[in-house]
Order: sequence, then structure tokens, then C-alpha cells
Amino acid sequence: MSDTALDFGILAGAGAPVRSFKAGEIIFRQGDPAEELYIVKSGKVEIRLGNRLLDTLPELSIFGEMALIDHNPRSATAVAATDATVVPVGEKQFLFLVSRTPHFALKVMRVLAQRLRTANSVIY
Amino acid sequence: MSDTALDFGILAGAGAPVRSFKAGEIIFRQGDPAEELYIVKSGKVEIRLGNRLLDTLPELSIFGEMALIDHNPRSATAVAATDATVVPVGEKQFLFLVSRTPHFALKVMRVLAQRLRTANSVIY
Repeated sequence: MSDTALDFGILAGAGAPVRSFKAGEIIFRQGDPAEELYIVKSGKVEIRLGNRLLDTLPELSIFGEMALIDHNPRSATAVAATDATVVPVGEKQFLFLVSRTPHFALKVMRVLAQRLRTANSVIY
Repeated sequence: MSDTALDFGILAGAGAPVRSFKAGEIIFRQGDPAEELYIVKSGKVEIRLGNRLLDTLPELSIFGEMALIDHNPRSATAVAATDATVVPVGEKQFLFLVSRTPHFALKVMRVLAQRLRTANSVIY
């Protein structure tokens, strides 16, 4: 299991809207404008930068959070590695979660810190 | 001014403990155990990974936050680029700030997201 697989199941509960992707389908591309993050509800999602595979995310992982934090375009491409379903979380819900649940904020920070350590280990 | 220069002045107010470094002095080294983050109170601090300069941080920037988030050793080396003073913030105070001030949590996320974008831009 990926080191970045913190459990974000709270966001993928019953009643949450779901989007489905077939294996190989692109969820978003590097450079796309962005307004949502996603939780992997089922299947696996790959995060790619050019030809490089940065991470493979299992169920209940979060991805696409950077765009909500800094309002820049997508920094990488997300691809369904298997048939997959994801739950989108918009900015309003994200800010609500950060303000009401410090545990959620710390989990998002942990995801970012892990990705930064991974990126730095690629540089060196 | 660096893109990562969000204003963390709230943590460097009157009465905060201060540590002083001469230009060129090392504040911490990659691989060191870590229990604190720091705010630059005066001067400039460089963040280095091997021979590569990752960032130069002006006053009221934050650094060293990753170790508080994921409890791993220092991911990079911090050096006083000029004579500098920094304010240490321990884990207890950090968790208090995250839980009581969502704005602080979002600022820390923004710093991490910016550093991740910088690291990714070095890879490509």
C-alpha cells in the first residue's frame, strides 16, 4: 500500500456523488484548471508527471488537493489504473472540513509532506 | 520575495523565544532528528538539498514544518544566509494552532504545495 494512503473514507460515505472511470481513462491532465479534489472510492489511480509514475493510490486515498490549496492548474495527470470510482470534493466542502476537523487538515498536510519527500528523493 | 513567503508573523511576536545564527551557520542538517518548526524573525534562511539551493526564505517565512507533520528526520538542510534570528515552534503549539486557526492550517498547506510544485518543476 502506498505511503500516501491515509484513510479519507469520511468523504466517500453513502450518498456522496461518485464518478466512474474505466481502466486507462484520464481523470485530469497536468495543466487543466481545477476546482475539486478527489477520494478514490474503488479501484486504483495513478499520478503521472510526463512519463514518470509518481504514485499509485489505493482506495480511500486523496488526490488533486493541491489545486484547492493554491488555486493553480493541475500539477500532474491522474489516470484510472483499474476501473475506478472517485468522489469529488469542492472548495467549499474542503474549507469546511479544514476548519471543523483539525485531524483532516493534518492528514492533508501528511499527504503533501509525503509527496514532497518522494519528489526530493527523485531529485537526489 | 519567495513564493513561499506567507506571513507567519503571528508566531514571531513579542515574547517569543528567539535563536540567533551568524551568516553561514547551519540551523539544521538533512537527516537530523526534528521536533520543531521555525519562523524567520530577521534575516534570510536558505533551504538546501545537497548542493542545490531549493529556496531562500525572507522574514516571517516558515520552515522545518515537515518534521512536525510526519515525524521523519529533516528532509533538507537550513542555513542562515545572512545573520538571522528564528523563532522555534514545538509540536504542541503547532497542533494547537492547526486546531484553533484553520487559516494557519491552510497557510501551512500552501507552503507545502508550493514546495511540491517547485520540486516537480526541478524533476521536469
